[in-house]
Amino acid sequence: MPSSSRIYSAALVVIGDEILSGRTHDKNIAQVASWLQVQGIRLREVRVVADDTPAIVEAVNTLRARNDYLFTTGGIGPTHDDITVDAIAEAVGVPVIVHPDARAILERYYDTRGGLTAARLRMARTPEGASLIPNRYTGAPGIRYGNIFIMAGVPSITAGMLDALSGELEGGAPLLSETIGCWVGESDVADLLRETEKAFETCQIGSYPFWAEGKTGANFVIRSVNAEDLAACTRALMRELEGMGKPAVPGGI
Amino acid sequence: MPSSSRIYSAALVVIGDEILSGRTHDKNIAQVASWLQVQGIRLREVRVVADDTPAIVEAVNTLRARNDYLFTTGGIGPTHDDITVDAIAEAVGVPVIVHPDARAILERYYDTRGGLTAARLRMARTPEGASLIPNRYTGAPGIRYGNIFIMAGVPSITAGMLDALSGELEGGAPLLSETIGCWVGESDVADLLRETEKAFETCQIGSYPFWAEGKTGANFVIRSVNAEDLAACTRALMRELEGMGKPAVPGGI
Repeated sequence: MPSSSRIYSAALVVIGDEILSGRTHDKNIAQVASWLQVQGIRLREVRVVADDTPAIVEAVNTLRARNDYLFTTGGIGPTHDDITVDAIAEAVGVPVIVHPDARAILERYYDTRGGLTAARLRMARTPEGASLIPNRYTGAPGIRYGNIFIMAGVPSITAGMLDALSGELEGGAPLLSETIGCWVGESDVADLLRETEKAFETCQIGSYPFWAEGKTGANFVIRSVNAEDLAACTRALMRELEGMGKPAVPGGI
Repeated sequence: MPSSSRIYSAALVVIGDEILSGRTHDKNIAQVASWLQVQGIRLREVRVVADDTPAIVEAVNTLRARNDYLFTTGGIGPTHDDITVDAIAEAVGVPVIVHPDARAILERYYDTRGGLTAARLRMARTPEGASLIPNRYTGAPGIRYGNIFIMAGVPSITAGMLDALSGELEGGAPLLSETIGCWVGESDVADLLRETEKAFETCQIGSYPFWAEGKTGANFVIRSVNAEDLAACTRALMRELEGMGKPAVPGGI
């Protein structure tokens, strides 16, 4: 159950040289963001940092202090460039241990897959005092330490870990949203958007222009924690657009 | 021409509630990252922040101080949620003005498109002392102020602005890379990767696992500013994989 009207916030640290080099297109930002919305938790900031201990430590310590939850993706595999666990242990000031439950999980998983080598055993290492986040795909678990959630970089594995955490974290009232699309230039409705937002105190309106079929259009996203205000604000905006001869499409274009 | 062996660094601030809500999948991180590689500039850190002045000011001031270049994307359109120019002017401590050249560009662009309304004129606003980055698609220019490059959020427009900046920024020797792919579990080659990296001082090896066709594989990306070392390291790694009965595929899988 959402508890009161307190706003719960989260940050995400995406760890990996491959994102900063442009080689890999990140998919975890959007995935974690969408999942957090459903949990009633606001994603406040994302940082993408290199496979570099000081950079990870700085980002983790800054963001865990000012958010209810901190998520990380990437750098928890078996190879030498997977330094996330060590960097986070350093950030929180505890040693790295081999977690007995993680070791048992990996022993079972690799039993029929060539055995638990030293490299694979790296994936059982956690900051001391951590608990595990199940990974149904490859055995190697994610890690929870305090308000920090350490997850895989491979998006399908991250998805499984998020699924395992669904409903587990305390969140506030989820931010609701409505999207409407309209074949209108956003500069033609800038005043209308500002005035409509001002008229509905709990609502925010975002404007996202696009060009398609040789025409200018925009989607407008109205957000609020209050379902009634959200509906009223959306109706008001649609009525005004209709009045301009620019009927809007519910759900967006 | 690349000047000496100094390393040039950049950071990117992606500005927009729509990324943090998960509604829009960011494409600018990968696009800016790839473009910077070609310019011989390393992308060191990315931050995604909300349409929120204090958040933008903090990210911009921290990152512009510790990098040669700072790029931003998003928040420079005509609507009320486009606050990037004001926030950056606040960050650098100068007023916002209507830039005469930007105004002239927009007047020409909107001459046959309904005229330059007050909302559209917002897109001619810059921090005082800024110069413009051409935008061939929609008139509204990007903005350069000192080492800060303020660009659009719509990826196709950002692409045009980056294109206009190509070759304009001083960069160092570009970081070269080779990719090889192999049907091998990365945990089976963790030691090999670490030892190979150690043997070639100027090289870094990244390991990126995947699952496809029911099998485990990984791409290995070798990076160096030294072309000879890069070639030698790649050859050495391929030879070792071949020796394990796991021949690698040049270019990756």
